[in-house]
Amino acid sequence: MSAKLTWVRACAPCSTANLGPGFDVFGLALDLFYDTVTVRLAKSSSIKVRGPHASRVPDEFNENSAGVVVSEFLKRLGVDAFVEVELEKGVPIGMGLGSSGASAAATALALNKLLGEPFGKRELVEIAAEGERASAGEPHADNVSASLLGGFTLIRSYRPLDVAHVEPPVNLGVVVAIPEVEVPPKKTGVSRSVLPKSVELEKVVHNVGHASAIALGMAIGDLELVGRGMSDAIVEPAREKLVPGYVEVRQSALRSGALGVAISGAGPSMLVLVDTATCDWRKVAEAVREAYSSIGVNAFVHFCRPSRGAKIVAEG
Amino acid sequence: MSAKLTWVRACAPCSTANLGPGFDVFGLALDLFYDTVTVRLAKSSSIKVRGPHASRVPDEFNENSAGVVVSEFLKRLGVDAFVEVELEKGVPIGMGLGSSGASAAATALALNKLLGEPFGKRELVEIAAEGERASAGEPHADNVSASLLGGFTLIRSYRPLDVAHVEPPVNLGVVVAIPEVEVPPKKTGVSRSVLPKSVELEKVVHNVGHASAIALGMAIGDLELVGRGMSDAIVEPAREKLVPGYVEVRQSALRSGALGVAISGAGPSMLVLVDTATCDWRKVAEAVREAYSSIGVNAFVHFCRPSRGAKIVAEG
Repeated sequence: MSAKLTWVRACAPCSTANLGPGFDVFGLALDLFYDTVTVRLAKSSSIKVRGPHASRVPDEFNENSAGVVVSEFLKRLGVDAFVEVELEKGVPIGMGLGSSGASAAATALALNKLLGEPFGKRELVEIAAEGERASAGEPHADNVSASLLGGFTLIRSYRPLDVAHVEPPVNLGVVVAIPEVEVPPKKTGVSRSVLPKSVELEKVVHNVGHASAIALGMAIGDLELVGRGMSDAIVEPAREKLVPGYVEVRQSALRSGALGVAISGAGPSMLVLVDTATCDWRKVAEAVREAYSSIGVNAFVHFCRPSRGAKIVAEG
Repeated sequence: MSAKLTWVRACAPCSTANLGPGFDVFGLALDLFYDTVTVRLAKSSSIKVRGPHASRVPDEFNENSAGVVVSEFLKRLGVDAFVEVELEKGVPIGMGLGSSGASAAATALALNKLLGEPFGKRELVEIAAEGERASAGEPHADNVSASLLGGFTLIRSYRPLDVAHVEPPVNLGVVVAIPEVEVPPKKTGVSRSVLPKSVELEKVVHNVGHASAIALGMAIGDLELVGRGMSDAIVEPAREKLVPGYVEVRQSALRSGALGVAISGAGPSMLVLVDTATCDWRKVAEAVREAYSSIGVNAFVHFCRPSRGAKIVAEG
């Protein structure tokens, strides 16, 4: 046994959810932006938020997903304690990149380490999903599971929570486009309000077939199949008007050799997958930039690989 | 080049479709019953049907799925020809075991060989799916793709037809229960007429998550995950009243160690998956038999493995 820790720092990556047909089911961790969380036992609970996006997240303990995770963690453990949280906010907020999920994942992992690892990964996903309540109003596990476990994740079921996980094929590359647009507060709620309450059966068959193709393709390393699976008959048609450049980005990216294109989570960012063994991601990124230009929108276009998920980075 | 063939005989296995949440998407070939088809160039087209189930299938060339496949095949090839078909009907009819799909698959494979293999496997699935029109009224590819390709198949898309395929884990065992009940003519139509026209979004998320789990589990060899995926919120709740013993068989099989249970295709047969490395299929089969007994229904309960699909068995 090591000496008792007094503080632990963990980081967790941003992530994308849905991948088109896998609404509320699929997550993919992205090695692009990270939230870093330091937890320390203290005499009262508190949260400090720093970093480039600090001004846009709640600094009330119970309104920030990190704080909610701490409360949930201690409640499950049946321990009365107080925790000081320092959150270095590296994941942009409200862009569909799982920002609150990254905070939640890093907090859960760090606190687990600080308290002697009472929980396994599966329970940490549950606890971190509770943190999503702070931003989404209900627990969601798609982003947090990806941020925690890394790679490609699949929520089979929410009750009970059951998450499956595979490493994506090594030649999977990801182009992420973040448009410079005003994001309304409670964006996730707005994005959910436009969704259809009921869906025609043939659209269900479409999405089940396409989502299953993504899962199979990720597992057997068939990236073409993953790309062909990225078509959504249900959620994207309802949301595309909320996402600037949706049609243009999709068309340009596919024409320039991308495997598939989807709204990243609830948007407005766009997710473009490429097979780096057969396609030059720079050309795809350039095509995506031009698509935004053509409609007068500035966008930051990044390239990254899948991330391996949250990890402990320091302790003392 | 070999000498020109004058006849070819192929056989194709029965299959199960849906596996619960994968309605119109998933197929699994079963090494249990086979249709055997012999094709021969002739002066006029004809079909002869033999075997234990011969009396229950159409012996009109254009009403039998084998005949429809021949016509579709020759049309695509742009060839005017006449073909004599002999169909040895080994797959029981109207039980949800892909009977017409097996005839269609064997016919497509045999005719392709007879005519010098003008088509690839993917086109053969398309042609055989046309044969399903004879029984289902519209082309369906879930059973025929499994019968032709073997193993586990996934229809990503019908237009264009795109079928993915993996070999299931080696320890996958299948218990198939065929109840002795009257099956109405046009059963598939009746089974489709009870389906909901529209589906609540949360049920869509349920089925997408569960179906994707089946696909992932088949690919990575996680049979527990496959079993946990076998829950359907949409089609089975609407159909279960048409399937005698649905509730009883499901409960008993799961209690006796089965991985998962589903209606096989449109029923009335039931499909039970077992992991033969950890579970004695005989116990599961016995539990299924008892479940039927308890409601006064006789049932034939079989054990089999997945089939490797259609194959040429003789030629001359």
